[in-house]
Amino acid sequence: MIVGHGDDLWRFGRAIVANFSSNVYGGVDLTALKEHLSHHMEAISHYPEPEPYTLEKALAALHGIDPECVCATSGATEAIYLIALAWRGARSTILQPTFSEYADACRLHGHSVAGITEPLCQAVRNGTLTGGDETLAIGNESPAGGDETLAGSDRPDLFWLCNPNNPDGRVIPKGQLKARIASNPDTIFVIDQSYGFFTEDPLLTPTEAIAAGNVLQLHSMTKRYAMPGLRLGYVTGARALIERIRNVRMPWSVNALAIEAGLYLANNPDTAPIDKPALLKEAQRLRNALGSLPGIRVEPTRTHFMLCHLEPVTDADQQTRQGTAASLKQYLAREHGLLIRDASNFEGLTAGHFRIAAQTPKENDLLINAIREYLK
Amino acid sequence: MIVGHGDDLWRFGRAIVANFSSNVYGGVDLTALKEHLSHHMEAISHYPEPEPYTLEKALAALHGIDPECVCATSGATEAIYLIALAWRGARSTILQPTFSEYADACRLHGHSVAGITEPLCQAVRNGTLTGGDETLAIGNESPAGGDETLAGSDRPDLFWLCNPNNPDGRVIPKGQLKARIASNPDTIFVIDQSYGFFTEDPLLTPTEAIAAGNVLQLHSMTKRYAMPGLRLGYVTGARALIERIRNVRMPWSVNALAIEAGLYLANNPDTAPIDKPALLKEAQRLRNALGSLPGIRVEPTRTHFMLCHLEPVTDADQQTRQGTAASLKQYLAREHGLLIRDASNFEGLTAGHFRIAAQTPKENDLLINAIREYLK
Repeated sequence: MIVGHGDDLWRFGRAIVANFSSNVYGGVDLTALKEHLSHHMEAISHYPEPEPYTLEKALAALHGIDPECVCATSGATEAIYLIALAWRGARSTILQPTFSEYADACRLHGHSVAGITEPLCQAVRNGTLTGGDETLAIGNESPAGGDETLAGSDRPDLFWLCNPNNPDGRVIPKGQLKARIASNPDTIFVIDQSYGFFTEDPLLTPTEAIAAGNVLQLHSMTKRYAMPGLRLGYVTGARALIERIRNVRMPWSVNALAIEAGLYLANNPDTAPIDKPALLKEAQRLRNALGSLPGIRVEPTRTHFMLCHLEPVTDADQQTRQGTAASLKQYLAREHGLLIRDASNFEGLTAGHFRIAAQTPKENDLLINAIREYLK
Repeated sequence: MIVGHGDDLWRFGRAIVANFSSNVYGGVDLTALKEHLSHHMEAISHYPEPEPYTLEKALAALHGIDPECVCATSGATEAIYLIALAWRGARSTILQPTFSEYADACRLHGHSVAGITEPLCQAVRNGTLTGGDETLAIGNESPAGGDETLAGSDRPDLFWLCNPNNPDGRVIPKGQLKARIASNPDTIFVIDQSYGFFTEDPLLTPTEAIAAGNVLQLHSMTKRYAMPGLRLGYVTGARALIERIRNVRMPWSVNALAIEAGLYLANNPDTAPIDKPALLKEAQRLRNALGSLPGIRVEPTRTHFMLCHLEPVTDADQQTRQGTAASLKQYLAREHGLLIRDASNFEGLTAGHFRIAAQTPKENDLLINAIREYLK
């Protein structure tokens, strides 16, 4: 595990006014869920189901799929570690830069790990990434090549990607992704759709992923319902793949309150509604406002969070200064009570990279003004 | 994971009057903790600490040990799986019969697994086990031998035991255990003390275990505080051993409400008091009452749960009948709403073995009467 994930409120004694540091959108009213859990506190007095069948059945019904194609986990993070364990020793390729836990889990379980950093990472670093530019590369082939089938020796057993991607909010065009999956039937595509709710772009549905046969999709209740403290995620995919994951899951891994919450939300999916068009519009407003400040570059995003970069600034004395995300983070936390994510520990990113998730307009204005002040 | 752990309430639609099937003592008043959690439901809206430092510090203070000697986990079960992973491929010896997850976790992580079933298991099967009889055998040596140091080739890397032991409530005499630990410095003793609160027998303290250097102790908040739904356990041991476990623990594995509960209980250890002498006395009353029924044998126990066996009974027609734990369990659940643990899936036990944990005197009387009726 890297040191320095987001939402490290606990480092600052919780004296934080607004939190942009995790990709969780906090403007969600969870009153109904919290009341439900308070009234079902009795759940802590009993063992949860050793394997959470009842919840898996409810999640399957929600997606209109077979319960045998769902594996509930203690957050999407457990899903990542279980997949790495179930395919222990595999060859994994990871589309970088992305959530660091894929690589950590793969290394822990003896995978050979390759990172694809071209053209995406380079484009991110150069600030040349545009919406239509992404080419999904797999293996060591040239990403620009038209050959979608991988050469035998370079073919990974698992290909990991996050879609929309953490930290930059990129979404891979659905048609391109489907073509790659179909052309590489011997590679399992592990697609982390934890942020799937937070984009208007079309994504692979669980039914399509199951039909493909070589796709595992990760889902996060944490992100959609802003309840990261409970730990609830799940994987969907073809029955044989899900069985392999279930076989390595320890009993009682999903706690009883997470199960209770999951059942409640599966049966009441309209709990805690989010005005998604308004949130995404607000995210673009935040991006434009920050991007207009001298010394900040903000990457394009297809979701509510975005990757930013502190650029070198030449001052009146012709001295070039460049701030680091670490110093900006300290400044914002200490002076303004605002928390951002120092993104310098993402593979391929630099000391100037930070990530923010849009929150309410009022909170976003606090951030814009505070960063403007920092840049002076 | 085996099918058929205890506390499988969910199989019976929760129409259960009393539950003897898990080793959790339910006669505990958790009102204060449940109220505390209801008032701290906000915890679900934030990520827990990626590694639960604050809780580990509080648990260390409780035991008077260094925080670097504590690793908090999502139930003691996660501790078992993490130890097996951290020592992947090791030679493990397990004192059988015992909790099945040690063997499952070791096999999952490529250990060579040996079970010591003599003399304990044989004695259990024969009904000849007495309090003073247990000899702690390690490796393949004769358990009766006086040589406490293991031969090189048979020496396990890890020696797993549960103390008090699940399913039979046996406690290994402390002096004997300490001598074995001292004589085998190259073997790590994984001692599951989940039921440590529930005996009057002396056990190794965390301070003694840390000083020994080759001991990992598992602790369960679940058992002491009857809150198996929350998932909270921890490991104590020498700093180098704990570091090895922490290095393979995934981030956020302990959920925020479990951390909140753990902090509350560490700071208020007298929450939910249990009259231990009364409980243990009641357990002996239950044992004597069941043992006096024709067709039941109950093993000696040093704690509040016990291992029972249905014996062959010869009826008036000289027909020998022997009930199974499975049929008794079905009968008790369906006819009386009482849940017991079919123990036939413990390594080395038979179809006639079942386990019960003493509950309140009134509940225990329901069980005694129901089993008496079954035996007619």
